Amino acid sequence: MAKELIFGHQNPDTDAIGTAIAYSYLQNKLGYDTEAVALGEANDETKYALNKFGFTAPRVIKTASNEVDAVMLVDHNEPQQSVSDIDKVKVTHVVDHHRIMNFNTADPLYYRAAPVGCTSTIMWQMYNEKEIEIPQDIAGIMLSAIISDTLLLKSPTTTDQDKEAVEALANIAGVNYKEYGLKMLKAGTNIADKSEEDLIDLDAKSFELNGSNVRVAQINVVDLPEALERKEAFLKAMDEASKSEGYDMFMLLITNILDSDSEALVVGSDESKAKFEKAFNTKLSDSEVKLPGVVSRKKQVVPPLTNAFEA
Amino acid sequence: MAKELIFGHQNPDTDAIGTAIAYSYLQNKLGYDTEAVALGEANDETKYALNKFGFTAPRVIKTASNEVDAVMLVDHNEPQQSVSDIDKVKVTHVVDHHRIMNFNTADPLYYRAAPVGCTSTIMWQMYNEKEIEIPQDIAGIMLSAIISDTLLLKSPTTTDQDKEAVEALANIAGVNYKEYGLKMLKAGTNIADKSEEDLIDLDAKSFELNGSNVRVAQINVVDLPEALERKEAFLKAMDEASKSEGYDMFMLLITNILDSDSEALVVGSDESKAKFEKAFNTKLSDSEVKLPGVVSRKKQVVPPLTNAFEA
Repeated sequence: MAKELIFGHQNPDTDAIGTAIAYSYLQNKLGYDTEAVALGEANDETKYALNKFGFTAPRVIKTASNEVDAVMLVDHNEPQQSVSDIDKVKVTHVVDHHRIMNFNTADPLYYRAAPVGCTSTIMWQMYNEKEIEIPQDIAGIMLSAIISDTLLLKSPTTTDQDKEAVEALANIAGVNYKEYGLKMLKAGTNIADKSEEDLIDLDAKSFELNGSNVRVAQINVVDLPEALERKEAFLKAMDEASKSEGYDMFMLLITNILDSDSEALVVGSDESKAKFEKAFNTKLSDSEVKLPGVVSRKKQVVPPLTNAFEA
Repeated sequence: MAKELIFGHQNPDTDAIGTAIAYSYLQNKLGYDTEAVALGEANDETKYALNKFGFTAPRVIKTASNEVDAVMLVDHNEPQQSVSDIDKVKVTHVVDHHRIMNFNTADPLYYRAAPVGCTSTIMWQMYNEKEIEIPQDIAGIMLSAIISDTLLLKSPTTTDQDKEAVEALANIAGVNYKEYGLKMLKAGTNIADKSEEDLIDLDAKSFELNGSNVRVAQINVVDLPEALERKEAFLKAMDEASKSEGYDMFMLLITNILDSDSEALVVGSDESKAKFEKAFNTKLSDSEVKLPGVVSRKKQVVPPLTNAFEA
């Protein structure tokens, strides 16, 4: 069987990298020849999790078709979030927890999606269905992915299945998930040593909303005022990225992981900003607005933006 | 929980109807409130299977949004093969064994696909994973679906998983699957009492191939010469359907289920016919050509047509 690469989305988070590692282990056990890779460097939070459970970060690839004919995707399906030459390889498997958009194939494939908080929750179910024993380190990295995506089970995307998976995986990994999880999340909140350009690109995704190219980035912090001291520099970096990459709107969500509130910064045309204000039924003040209780890009940001842009 | 409808594709076959029935039973066991319906009348083969296992044919619907807000799809995902108002309802679940094409959602959903011969094979796996006991009649209708889609495990779409499912389901259903299967397939080959207009629409699907609207219909027979006596009438009906429905090409595959060979009839523009000839590396003679060994629209017809139309 020809080798296949497994990877998550661009600007990888702990789910994208952790679930790729877990899926590669599972598929290799089932007879496939796979390697988990990543479409970017691991962020600080992911590095903390990888280190905790004894993994090195997956190799970063820029293109896939120079190495393999076929790939497996985790934690994404939209082509613009995938490897740059996704149209040159065959996608044979997808495991994901996002909406399906612009994902077209020539042939039937394995596709497994569920509206749960994290791809690793589905992966945990797949291990159970296939009756493959989960090693301690794999359990640890899947646990880390779920804690990351659900902000320690506090995000509104969290389901009972995520909670079950966390309990079971923490048990196998041998960690107190609340203590470990808070340490891991905090490891991802150190913004002091990073430039604004880097921070707005670390966890950022592009969405095509009714013809508009909308960028939504998110930063987790434990000290919102510290982050907002750099507001003007963030806005400048977002403005420059919009010009060079052709974004019609750039939204930065700065989320306090301790109290689950966010502050949004928005740059873009007056028309785009009006759509943002309509989406959240709010008014921007000097490009900024509080979004109390908003922590999930997928569940609380993309759907209202989609509706506003399509109206 | 609000009621949802479950249905397969237009011009339903035994998989579309049988798997909808099986999925509705499973989902209701798991706490959902669902009803299996169909997007058209059951064909003779499906009626034979339904009757054999004590089912009445599912209610036929023309639209869904007048009844429910959300639906579950089996055996298809492409919008043009689905209910006419699919854009007005939310798709919460899909179980399918086809390529994914033009299927876009606003929200995450349950999606389960595998490149196997029949949707009921995936359904059988889902029953096993959920540890839900399969009643005898449900086993019988799932068995019928797999026999239908794989032409008694002889189609090139057949996988080891389909064979395992057939063995297991025949055991639960209490039938000799080879004897029963041949009777069921033969029940679907009586074309004498049907008009050409009906026959070219019984098992027909539309595909958008690089902007061209291509219709591919299939008829199963046990006596090819008998069917070809009606060739001129078939061509006339296909020509009329193309004009009224705007098909750029209409291909009718007449398959002898006993020896797994097919005869193709094709109407359309000279350009479309040239693409057909390129796809199958053959020459049409008076709109007709033998396609030895071709029995699967999904695996042996749509991929070469897709390539030829996109070249």
